Amino acid sequence: MHTRHTIADNIQQRVNDMSWVIKSKATNIDRLLLEESLFFTGNGYLGVRGNLEESSPSDMPSIRGTYINGFYDDVPISYGEKLHGFPDTQQKQLNMIDAQSIDIIVGVGDQQETLSLWNGTVLDYERSLHMDKGFTERRIHWKSSYGHELRVTFKRLASQAYQSLFLQHIELESLSGPIPVTVQSRVNGHVENHIDQSDPRVGHGHAKRVHIKDVTLTDDYKSVVKVKTYASNLTATARSHINVDAVDHQTTYHVDEHHVTTTIAFTLDGQSTIEKRTYFSDSRQTALSKKEQHALDQLPASYFFRKQAEDMANFWSHADIQIGGDTKLQEGIRFNLYHLFQSAGRDGQSNIAAKGLSGEGYEGHYFWDTEIYMLPFFTMTQPDIAKQLLLYRYSILDAARNRAREMGHSKGALFPWRTISGSECSSFFPAGSAQYHISADIAYSFVQYYLATNDTDFMVRYGGEVLVETARLWLDTGHFASDGSFRIDAVTGPDEYTCIVNNNYYTNAMAKFNLTWAVKAINLMKRKAPEHWHKLQAEQDVTTAEVDDFLLAAENMYLPVDDTLKINPQDDTFLNKGVWDIAETPKEQFPLLLHYHPLTLYRYQVCKQADTVLAHFLLEDEQSEDVMKHSYLYYEQVTTFDSSLSFCVFSMMAARLGDLDKAYNYFIDTVRMDLDNTHGNTKDGLHMANMGGTWLAIVAGFAGMRIKESGLHFRPQLPTQWNGYAFPLHYQGRQLHIELNGTDFVVTMAEGEPVNMSVWDTTYKLSPGQPVQVCLT
Amino acid sequence: MHTRHTIADNIQQRVNDMSWVIKSKATNIDRLLLEESLFFTGNGYLGVRGNLEESSPSDMPSIRGTYINGFYDDVPISYGEKLHGFPDTQQKQLNMIDAQSIDIIVGVGDQQETLSLWNGTVLDYERSLHMDKGFTERRIHWKSSYGHELRVTFKRLASQAYQSLFLQHIELESLSGPIPVTVQSRVNGHVENHIDQSDPRVGHGHAKRVHIKDVTLTDDYKSVVKVKTYASNLTATARSHINVDAVDHQTTYHVDEHHVTTTIAFTLDGQSTIEKRTYFSDSRQTALSKKEQHALDQLPASYFFRKQAEDMANFWSHADIQIGGDTKLQEGIRFNLYHLFQSAGRDGQSNIAAKGLSGEGYEGHYFWDTEIYMLPFFTMTQPDIAKQLLLYRYSILDAARNRAREMGHSKGALFPWRTISGSECSSFFPAGSAQYHISADIAYSFVQYYLATNDTDFMVRYGGEVLVETARLWLDTGHFASDGSFRIDAVTGPDEYTCIVNNNYYTNAMAKFNLTWAVKAINLMKRKAPEHWHKLQAEQDVTTAEVDDFLLAAENMYLPVDDTLKINPQDDTFLNKGVWDIAETPKEQFPLLLHYHPLTLYRYQVCKQADTVLAHFLLEDEQSEDVMKHSYLYYEQVTTFDSSLSFCVFSMMAARLGDLDKAYNYFIDTVRMDLDNTHGNTKDGLHMANMGGTWLAIVAGFAGMRIKESGLHFRPQLPTQWNGYAFPLHYQGRQLHIELNGTDFVVTMAEGEPVNMSVWDTTYKLSPGQPVQVCLT
Repeated sequence: MHTRHTIADNIQQRVNDMSWVIKSKATNIDRLLLEESLFFTGNGYLGVRGNLEESSPSDMPSIRGTYINGFYDDVPISYGEKLHGFPDTQQKQLNMIDAQSIDIIVGVGDQQETLSLWNGTVLDYERSLHMDKGFTERRIHWKSSYGHELRVTFKRLASQAYQSLFLQHIELESLSGPIPVTVQSRVNGHVENHIDQSDPRVGHGHAKRVHIKDVTLTDDYKSVVKVKTYASNLTATARSHINVDAVDHQTTYHVDEHHVTTTIAFTLDGQSTIEKRTYFSDSRQTALSKKEQHALDQLPASYFFRKQAEDMANFWSHADIQIGGDTKLQEGIRFNLYHLFQSAGRDGQSNIAAKGLSGEGYEGHYFWDTEIYMLPFFTMTQPDIAKQLLLYRYSILDAARNRAREMGHSKGALFPWRTISGSECSSFFPAGSAQYHISADIAYSFVQYYLATNDTDFMVRYGGEVLVETARLWLDTGHFASDGSFRIDAVTGPDEYTCIVNNNYYTNAMAKFNLTWAVKAINLMKRKAPEHWHKLQAEQDVTTAEVDDFLLAAENMYLPVDDTLKINPQDDTFLNKGVWDIAETPKEQFPLLLHYHPLTLYRYQVCKQADTVLAHFLLEDEQSEDVMKHSYLYYEQVTTFDSSLSFCVFSMMAARLGDLDKAYNYFIDTVRMDLDNTHGNTKDGLHMANMGGTWLAIVAGFAGMRIKESGLHFRPQLPTQWNGYAFPLHYQGRQLHIELNGTDFVVTMAEGEPVNMSVWDTTYKLSPGQPVQVCLT
Repeated sequence: MHTRHTIADNIQQRVNDMSWVIKSKATNIDRLLLEESLFFTGNGYLGVRGNLEESSPSDMPSIRGTYINGFYDDVPISYGEKLHGFPDTQQKQLNMIDAQSIDIIVGVGDQQETLSLWNGTVLDYERSLHMDKGFTERRIHWKSSYGHELRVTFKRLASQAYQSLFLQHIELESLSGPIPVTVQSRVNGHVENHIDQSDPRVGHGHAKRVHIKDVTLTDDYKSVVKVKTYASNLTATARSHINVDAVDHQTTYHVDEHHVTTTIAFTLDGQSTIEKRTYFSDSRQTALSKKEQHALDQLPASYFFRKQAEDMANFWSHADIQIGGDTKLQEGIRFNLYHLFQSAGRDGQSNIAAKGLSGEGYEGHYFWDTEIYMLPFFTMTQPDIAKQLLLYRYSILDAARNRAREMGHSKGALFPWRTISGSECSSFFPAGSAQYHISADIAYSFVQYYLATNDTDFMVRYGGEVLVETARLWLDTGHFASDGSFRIDAVTGPDEYTCIVNNNYYTNAMAKFNLTWAVKAINLMKRKAPEHWHKLQAEQDVTTAEVDDFLLAAENMYLPVDDTLKINPQDDTFLNKGVWDIAETPKEQFPLLLHYHPLTLYRYQVCKQADTVLAHFLLEDEQSEDVMKHSYLYYEQVTTFDSSLSFCVFSMMAARLGDLDKAYNYFIDTVRMDLDNTHGNTKDGLHMANMGGTWLAIVAGFAGMRIKESGLHFRPQLPTQWNGYAFPLHYQGRQLHIELNGTDFVVTMAEGEPVNMSVWDTTYKLSPGQPVQVCLT
């Protein structure tokens, strides 16, 4: 026990040196645009970009946005040539109602000036993201052109406990005696989405998709704005109130067709606070009732900040990763986990958009990013949220069945490549609908969740049905060739620079897993919950012959190895193509997708991201160490890393194959990708999958964690750059603490049933109060 | 000589039994819609659909259209996800100005009625297409509800000699004494294009693309309407005049913002004629000057009908194919050749749209259809038109160079898959831009034209440059593999049910031809016109190493044979896929493209059309008879013939391989495809490529004609269903006449230098007045 404590203390000491707060003093417009994403405020339901409360110049680039997770409109898709099965419409996550605006006007008459970064003199400015407490803050020390000097602190939070609530709290302090102040606060329903014609990763049409249903000042002086979508018939409502604690203030209200504006005039003498509470709700969700809102209104702002801090403390106690030896990395990791938590839907009706709730890139769509890159973090640290994310997939299973029919499959479910409400939103099918692997990815995640939680009830109620329906898709998509092998043609794997291929290794391997586990799930259901099995069998007409074919297809799945290169070919013809000269390609030509026609890319051995290598991470027991190693080295050479989904995979597999330097270097690329805007498009939102990848790169990479049918596995290693690392883990109802310090790997469990686990292929029994300590030298 | 005359007489006798006139008595609305295409009137510049002069019920389905070849607007293309190199705009052939309308109102006061198929009593009705004379005609014997009985004959022609002129000529005969008649004629600039949201083969957006610039009645009572396109800034003008030869007629004019209406009242006593002349011109073309128009106005209508008959006689003397033994087929063949002639642009600025000038299907775009299916007819019968069609391709060579750059090629020219003015109009690249073979198809046609005409001047001025620039494309697209073979990846062959593949046999074989002939053309230029070669070399920076590589790539082109099946695989992985069960697919599911997502089709061995088999037709010396035969039988089984481009190819190759019954049956499918509307979409326009295919199926199919570097070849055969066939042929400045009667194959030449030719691989010398006669038994 002594040793363990030393490790913990050791790490703790360094952790104390590290900041839980991200700070920025930047006031240039490009950085401010970027920080709208970096400093966004969310709680899985609400997301509010880090826009400024105060007015800014009209030509300042800004994406002003407030989002509700899964609040969308259906918009038509136009095609030059529309073929059968191309979706007619797609969903688009909407910018909804803007309640952020609060202008502070200082002085009177011709000495009046609005506080902003562009007026008067900014004596000091700092923005902070308090990841430990769950709020953001901006401090301005400002002097007007007419000599009024004051300090203003803007704080804002999206409440974790009360998901409707967006709270803004402003502290003012006069530094030049009594100052006449006029506060002007707005709630604005006249909003649009951001569009960019030039970037395929951003929406480029249908900016305006809500119209205003109601703009009212209620009898109790609440500003209410209600909007309705053009086509999906969803409504969203903001109910807002602003208050100043100054004595003798005068409040006036103005309602026009778009806004409710509240104007409060008072004299700032010493300190005052302004507080604005906005409750958002929408027609899909049971929002806080007015009564509940009223009850909350009785509570002081401090209550919500305290509650938020408690909720965040609880989150971190299950999630925080501690790194010994690098403050910048520590900051980056926490930043990533924080935003994952802010973005994950937890109502079973929503999920995690590619950009979370931080921006409008990829139009708020949910991709495979969730299952393969983000879900492991939730499964292993917040299984309740993981469960809700999987329930969302279950909720769109019927839509996936419909999509399979549209795509010509008589049975089974094909999950959409990108969606909000369940139907396919991909209008470019070669790098969209053709990515059939998403169905296997979702199946894989149900299995991972089951293995990590042992939640049999969930598996028999939901997982089994998903596994069976996706397995059927593979049976219908593939075919048994004359040599008996089962082959899957005309799909696209994860690598979007190589589309519509035959026998993509990743897809085939994942389909094999899917088919195998469909049978296992059926057997589990038969054993544990035959009533669920009989119901599924009857409703979906599942035959014994079909189940036999699942196994036959899985056992005969075509997974070739190239004898010369000793690698898994990415697909049937990948290795026959010419090799793209990445080294000779000018830097400004990356990402290639923005500079080359897809056909040009398809013509070469060039990968946007990990594909076969990712399959090796997810299914390491399918291939020998040798094949995985050769594959890694081969594909690394032909991968551009244009996709943010790539670094973490290469990091994990480098660690898996023993190259810690590479693992470390790729990890570095994941951990501060958004903080340092290394992909140049963080303004459109954070790269959520990469954020999940950071967690994976440590837990599944350096610590080598795998969840398999055989249990919990570790292959811990320590990059030379670090002294150690530590993280909590949830495993089958147990709370574990994992630490590595130098050569000592220690796993502790506070309570729960003993459980076996393996460290570097040696099995250990872990019991409460009896840490397993393994010396790695 | 005796024998030959017997054959000719023999055939002539049957020909005399056959009609040069297509007749129809149909008045049902579906058939009338169809006949708008079948009875269209064109001259290569103008195309006027066979709409009715008289008003029809407003709910009657009709596509009312008047087109100028290559008169287009640029319209934006929308994409759900737009990637690099996707075209921003496409061209769209426009419906322009409608001058067809002429109402004949019979009676006065409350006994007035407009002559139409839906009013009064139609006592007799017949429509005729006079293919020998070059005009269409509609005869109506009609009695009004108030007892006025008359015969009216509408005739119309688009003048071959005066391409601006559209002439309508109406003969009226009273059968019930003097009849008060009011003629109302309109020229209408308020027109739109037809759209159909549900059919990808028809335009589905941007119906209205012209606005009216001018509507005037001139001092000399000409109705002038001028329209301008929205974006391309082209203008088109119609200058029209209507006249009645009756005495005491009263004419009034009405001009509004959209129309000029001319109203003529007179008493029909006995016979009268009405004549409407409309001159169309557009801003791209030197139209007839007003002076020229005025001179033509002095000529009677009969002059134009006579001149048209002369021009058509001249056409037929070089083009007519005579079949002994089947009137329906004879009718079909002439119908097809007639419409080819009506549709082919002959100004070097325009080409032949997929639907010719008969309708709006495929938006008036020019495809590879011209080169591979239609050009052979013109090359071998009307080389002057063929030359103009090739000059059009030369005119867009710079656009093809630009397209190659957009597609990432540093050198060379990539011709657009579909275009009017030269830029790529395909918005679905897997079955569009990816069809790189069109560049080789164009190159192939320049070579065919050269071999057929011996027009060295054209080759050195234009052909050489096209061949070099397209050869460069192949060098840049393909690569030398480690085994030294030259491979071309990520292209789509002719078969649009199998997209984006590696080493499509057709593409590789055609590219080989292209590369080989680039070198031959260079050598020809060096020898015959070094100044052209030096100019090309200097302007395009053609290096010796590059030319060496053309040969190296050609010699090492990868053209595999599957050892087991003894066929050329369509591409690298085609044969590994599952085979689509065509027999088990319900009839109503064809064409498959309207009922299955492209991915589903890509997943199977299923072809929309001839692909490898077409390569074997075009390049028969690349493979052994055995491989061609096995390939034919194999691909025939997996081809749906959903494309109208398929039948003629299978017919020709069946003939080539000795299966005359199959050849005949496929021929039958080509010859009356539009007349019998077997594809169900002739309303949108005629299938021009198939029409060219009819000619090919006889000349290159049954007569087995090939033009090679080694000269003119025949492998004549006679289907058992026929007694014989005969056709004229142009070869290197000589006019040949080819006949097959029973077992005697006879080739005659009236004048010119003697020339060698081969019949069934035996060489014969053909001299003027000395027919070659070969007994085929």
